[in-house]
Amino acid sequence: MRYSSILSKTSKTAPADEKTINARLLVQAGFVNKLMAGSYSYLPLGLRVLRKIENIIRQEMNNINGQEVLLPALHPSANWKKTGGWEDIDVLFKLKGRTGREYALGQSHEEVITPLVKEYMNSYKDLPVFVYQIQNKYRDELRAKSGILRGREFGMKDMYSFHIDQDDFDKFYEIAKEAYFNIFSQCGLDAKATEASGGSFSKKVSYEFMVLTNAGEDDIFYCNKCEYCINSEIAKIKQQSQCPKCEKGRLLKARASEVGNVFDLGQKYTKDFNLYVLDADHNKVYPIMGCYGIGTTRLMGVIAEKHFDDKGLVWPKSVAPFMFHIVSINPENKMVKYKAENLYKQLKKQGKEVLYDDRNESAGKKLADADLIGIPYRIIISPETIRKEKIEVKERSKVKPRLIDEKRVFDLN
Amino acid sequence: MRYSSILSKTSKTAPADEKTINARLLVQAGFVNKLMAGSYSYLPLGLRVLRKIENIIRQEMNNINGQEVLLPALHPSANWKKTGGWEDIDVLFKLKGRTGREYALGQSHEEVITPLVKEYMNSYKDLPVFVYQIQNKYRDELRAKSGILRGREFGMKDMYSFHIDQDDFDKFYEIAKEAYFNIFSQCGLDAKATEASGGSFSKKVSYEFMVLTNAGEDDIFYCNKCEYCINSEIAKIKQQSQCPKCEKGRLLKARASEVGNVFDLGQKYTKDFNLYVLDADHNKVYPIMGCYGIGTTRLMGVIAEKHFDDKGLVWPKSVAPFMFHIVSINPENKMVKYKAENLYKQLKKQGKEVLYDDRNESAGKKLADADLIGIPYRIIISPETIRKEKIEVKERSKVKPRLIDEKRVFDLN
Repeated sequence: MRYSSILSKTSKTAPADEKTINARLLVQAGFVNKLMAGSYSYLPLGLRVLRKIENIIRQEMNNINGQEVLLPALHPSANWKKTGGWEDIDVLFKLKGRTGREYALGQSHEEVITPLVKEYMNSYKDLPVFVYQIQNKYRDELRAKSGILRGREFGMKDMYSFHIDQDDFDKFYEIAKEAYFNIFSQCGLDAKATEASGGSFSKKVSYEFMVLTNAGEDDIFYCNKCEYCINSEIAKIKQQSQCPKCEKGRLLKARASEVGNVFDLGQKYTKDFNLYVLDADHNKVYPIMGCYGIGTTRLMGVIAEKHFDDKGLVWPKSVAPFMFHIVSINPENKMVKYKAENLYKQLKKQGKEVLYDDRNESAGKKLADADLIGIPYRIIISPETIRKEKIEVKERSKVKPRLIDEKRVFDLN
Repeated sequence: MRYSSILSKTSKTAPADEKTINARLLVQAGFVNKLMAGSYSYLPLGLRVLRKIENIIRQEMNNINGQEVLLPALHPSANWKKTGGWEDIDVLFKLKGRTGREYALGQSHEEVITPLVKEYMNSYKDLPVFVYQIQNKYRDELRAKSGILRGREFGMKDMYSFHIDQDDFDKFYEIAKEAYFNIFSQCGLDAKATEASGGSFSKKVSYEFMVLTNAGEDDIFYCNKCEYCINSEIAKIKQQSQCPKCEKGRLLKARASEVGNVFDLGQKYTKDFNLYVLDADHNKVYPIMGCYGIGTTRLMGVIAEKHFDDKGLVWPKSVAPFMFHIVSINPENKMVKYKAENLYKQLKKQGKEVLYDDRNESAGKKLADADLIGIPYRIIISPETIRKEKIEVKERSKVKPRLIDEKRVFDLN
């Protein structure tokens, strides 16, 4: 893509009204644009990152037999009244149409998926069922001030599972946990599975996947020797106390941001919607239900919070908007222009993802923009590289550039 | 994909509360599920069709230099008050959050894209600009009874263009028209570009792309000799009158469904949001704006309305959920099962899209389901085909099956 053709350019300064690193960098670099507090537009560069994150998640959900669906965001109030959410969930957006019908905007989709699954489930042999979607959620947050970490409208992958018994859910939780760790590590994040409260409808423990960052809204205790981790909200322990799991390590306290969660919903929703199956002995069984969330836009925000330096974003290759960023220095020089155009076309022909800064801007401006945008490989073509019959390649995450033969660029990945 | 693993199976009968062909077939065949009037969930088969339609549109929009973005659906009321839409647009859903903030749900996105483009446009040299998104829209329809043709929540591709003058818009309209015809013909639809009213904010003509179908909600007059076509709402002509364009043909009246539209928005929104550029002579110019819509879910509905027979859906290959539908007859026969499993794996290995009906159901049930679902190539593996050392292939759109060597199936496309 030619940078000159992209609507959303970088800004000279970070927006004054944004406090978090993710919003400051993503807005300044032209990835997102704020419509209002808690609501952002995804611009060409930002949408490319979001789609890559979604595809990493989609692949892992498919691998554990998830079936992708797409549910409406506008829900009939009746479904929410049936579960008590209409009255009890304070972030639920409610509205009334001109026909007098009342609706809720989905803040989660148990109220839609449960009656839907009920229509197609005939026998215990249909269990287990794993259904997911990647779709926008709406939450009437009192404060939305963490950039794309906490929005009134945000992207989410939500999977729902239905099991014949608790044991089957427990086994699947381990499988889902593995998939979640795969997702986060592909996104360049080191997440901890953390015990937490089960929310308003459950006394059970839930599992949150937390990434250590000062931009987070939770405090966690984690063991310095094993994977034990617990949200401070439910922890009855102190900093530096002995780990209750390995009994060797010490618990350390840290600020963290939630990037995913798993709720054991028990039979709450299957009973509310009278979704049951007959087991092999013809007994009525209300399936155990699990819910597995990952905020896709939040995940993008957390990646930004963890992958940046004083010059800008430093995207992991897996989610970078492009792999290569060609910068032509002195593009009015015919040879520079010819070489840059040619390399752009050659790389594209090989299926590589390339951003090509073809603008007539100063070298300083173009290099600063490349650092701010944070694409993994910056390639410079200048009168000097042409004289040396090389091109200059610099990895965004490294300090030093190197001169290489042009043909060697095709081996970079 | 194994049909046994898909949640949403076919139903024996079409839903009693659905009157239109698209809803009756798509619900019965397990492509969509009705949540409430005007709101449908997209199930695994339906979502695959929708994604293919979206990708056809995306490719054509990229080809005409469209930049893909993703805008919020939840809008601040201030933007709609600025344009008059808050009071004047009766399908606008409005809501109030617990903080007292008022919001609208996007029924179109001029109110968001115009101020966004304003932030990045510095000079007349930045024009023209083409931005599009594929995203859900919300409209408070009084009646929503045409299945997925008219929803309270529906998928839409909406592109917005900004031009230095009317001439530039007019030229781009011809380019966009060509892209639209490419999209519709790839979707198996013969659309007519139709003159229509410009809507509530414009006295200009708009262009609707119409497909002849009794499920439509408009009447059009079209010439039997040339491409002239006009919506009956603005036509001052009669059935059988002479075509005003070619002056040779006769105008015929027909029922039609809109699959796309183009609005010449003039300077309405650029003036409302004070989006202007300075031209080469330093004069203030408010760009001319165009809006180009295609309802993605509606398009899926219209395809269903045009591609079916008395046994079910007959998907065009370009948008079919899968290309091959393997049906094993008597799967308890070990050889049948072995052959079917093997062919399924071989086709998948070659990157083919395959639905594999591996259920222990009767031949009659499985064949009826295959007809209802409407995948282009049905492949039967049965004791009989094994005895003949062949497989049976039938195109959904043709009458007769044929026996072919198994290896020849890899050449079908």
